[in-house]
Amino acid sequence: METLGAGVSNGGRPPGLLRFNARLGYVAGADIGGSAVRVALADLNGTILGRWAASTRGNATPQRIVASVATGVRELLRQHKVARSRLLTIAAGAPGITDVQAGIVISAPHLSQWQNVPLRELLEDKVGVSATIDNDVNLGALGESWCGAARGVRNFVFLAIGTGIGAGIFVDGRLHHGDDWAAGEIGYMHVPGTPNGILRFDRPGPLESVIGGAAIERAWRRMCHAGNGFVRRAQATQVFEYAKAGHPAARRLLQETARMVSNAVLNVSVVLNSSLVVLGGGIGTSQPLFEVTRRLLERNEFARPRLALGVLGKDAQLFGAIRMALDDAEARLVPGA
Amino acid sequence: METLGAGVSNGGRPPGLLRFNARLGYVAGADIGGSAVRVALADLNGTILGRWAASTRGNATPQRIVASVATGVRELLRQHKVARSRLLTIAAGAPGITDVQAGIVISAPHLSQWQNVPLRELLEDKVGVSATIDNDVNLGALGESWCGAARGVRNFVFLAIGTGIGAGIFVDGRLHHGDDWAAGEIGYMHVPGTPNGILRFDRPGPLESVIGGAAIERAWRRMCHAGNGFVRRAQATQVFEYAKAGHPAARRLLQETARMVSNAVLNVSVVLNSSLVVLGGGIGTSQPLFEVTRRLLERNEFARPRLALGVLGKDAQLFGAIRMALDDAEARLVPGA
Repeated sequence: METLGAGVSNGGRPPGLLRFNARLGYVAGADIGGSAVRVALADLNGTILGRWAASTRGNATPQRIVASVATGVRELLRQHKVARSRLLTIAAGAPGITDVQAGIVISAPHLSQWQNVPLRELLEDKVGVSATIDNDVNLGALGESWCGAARGVRNFVFLAIGTGIGAGIFVDGRLHHGDDWAAGEIGYMHVPGTPNGILRFDRPGPLESVIGGAAIERAWRRMCHAGNGFVRRAQATQVFEYAKAGHPAARRLLQETARMVSNAVLNVSVVLNSSLVVLGGGIGTSQPLFEVTRRLLERNEFARPRLALGVLGKDAQLFGAIRMALDDAEARLVPGA
Repeated sequence: METLGAGVSNGGRPPGLLRFNARLGYVAGADIGGSAVRVALADLNGTILGRWAASTRGNATPQRIVASVATGVRELLRQHKVARSRLLTIAAGAPGITDVQAGIVISAPHLSQWQNVPLRELLEDKVGVSATIDNDVNLGALGESWCGAARGVRNFVFLAIGTGIGAGIFVDGRLHHGDDWAAGEIGYMHVPGTPNGILRFDRPGPLESVIGGAAIERAWRRMCHAGNGFVRRAQATQVFEYAKAGHPAARRLLQETARMVSNAVLNVSVVLNSSLVVLGGGIGTSQPLFEVTRRLLERNEFARPRLALGVLGKDAQLFGAIRMALDDAEARLVPGA
């Protein structure tokens, strides 16, 4: 059993308001990714009772994913002997533009058949409790804000780089969603070196097409002549470790990627002027990438936010989902609080 | 006498609360620019009684500018037979990063000797009333929000292109200033085609160094072989008119500038996802530039805010200053309102 967020302030409400009745009810959180679904069960203190995960590769239709989440919740309730009636709510993050109010995933380019998916309704039907949903990177920001690198910071940007690229933006202590729920979709950003062209919903944006995981790995396969322990079909993070070990082509790729990341951080910073940018995601948390990016940013007199590594790793989204579910449960248990 | 903002909602307070006593007091607004200082006097309804302007070319030290503002206020009070004791407050916009809370202009690269200038205190000393200050582009956004192209819009970006480039950002109905008062300093943005290099406070940023007024005019002088009624030392807006008239080099310059502006709009949009972007400033309000930029943006499926021309022209900042002064006066007259 993990303890999360002990003593973490609870959205302005008195901490511990519900702590005496932590087992009054339970909440579930789900992180829906391109390759896996992960589910966690927590009590009202935010203590994680257990987790469950399943691969979704080649099988990521909305119906399959939702069925998988429901199986995970059922398993966790059974394992931890929690009656279904005591599960209060579930929150889920989806890797796409998400209309939080309507409960709809508008588009998720890295999942097949995910356009205008009524995810909230599907979850409520299959899991049997009320649901809330948001974009997964937004939930990552919420997670890092709750119990990670941005704890207590009212203005910050969580910049996630993995298969996709996106930012979760906190303004004045709250997630900023934008008028069409697309705030932080910085995979569509243009920086020096990104390709020209028309932006489409169903294709990776200019920045993502150059420094998303697939793009880095493609570039590496073009550059690398393998041998000497360097694998040609390496993952992006592995390539950056090769750079640290001195491989010239890997170093070039790391430098180019870091320059793009630093320009993206800079562009976000000249708009928002947040004093903290937290790097997250599988690639964003690569230590060599972080170091080179930070060095590039520190040369500037201007637009120099503090750059930090996310501390929750790939759990940021799941923890954010738990936090969102807790907020929803509290609002239901203490109306008007 | 001009009437401004009749019926405009007054920051959430009942409209007309002070209207019965519009002549209870007066406010002044000042727009401090690189080449001119402009001052306006208004009653508590926001009706402008009169304006005053003076050139500041080659003479833009803080002391000279503040003396000039004080002269303008004195002149306006005299002309409109308003006793000095009835002037409640003055608000001023400065072309640089401005700490609104401390009342200090941190840096203004287009003015000489403007680093860490205690502008609020200087104004209070010389004008003899309480003062508030903000960045001029922020005040431009406030002006367009009060009685211009963004009336009633809670999330929008006012993007001003002139000698300098900057954005005033409204989030949830309020100006977003950023942690170091530098939100919207998008002259420092990187887009494809901007030069590499270290960002410095005292130098124009990458974007400004390519599409700021001086840069466009320099590029035109390099390209143009004059003749046929085309002037070699033309202003940027004139060059864009030449483009419309068919001059090939001018058309190229217009296309390149519009591509950079559209990429800047796009980059701001993927961060904030505001549904409205208002173009302002001497160059930003050029009709040919607006048309080409809008066409480039409309090709995208994504990050397509409505692009509008500011309707207040170079008055946006001055009207924003009046609005800021009115808010300050109201807060003083109706504490807690």
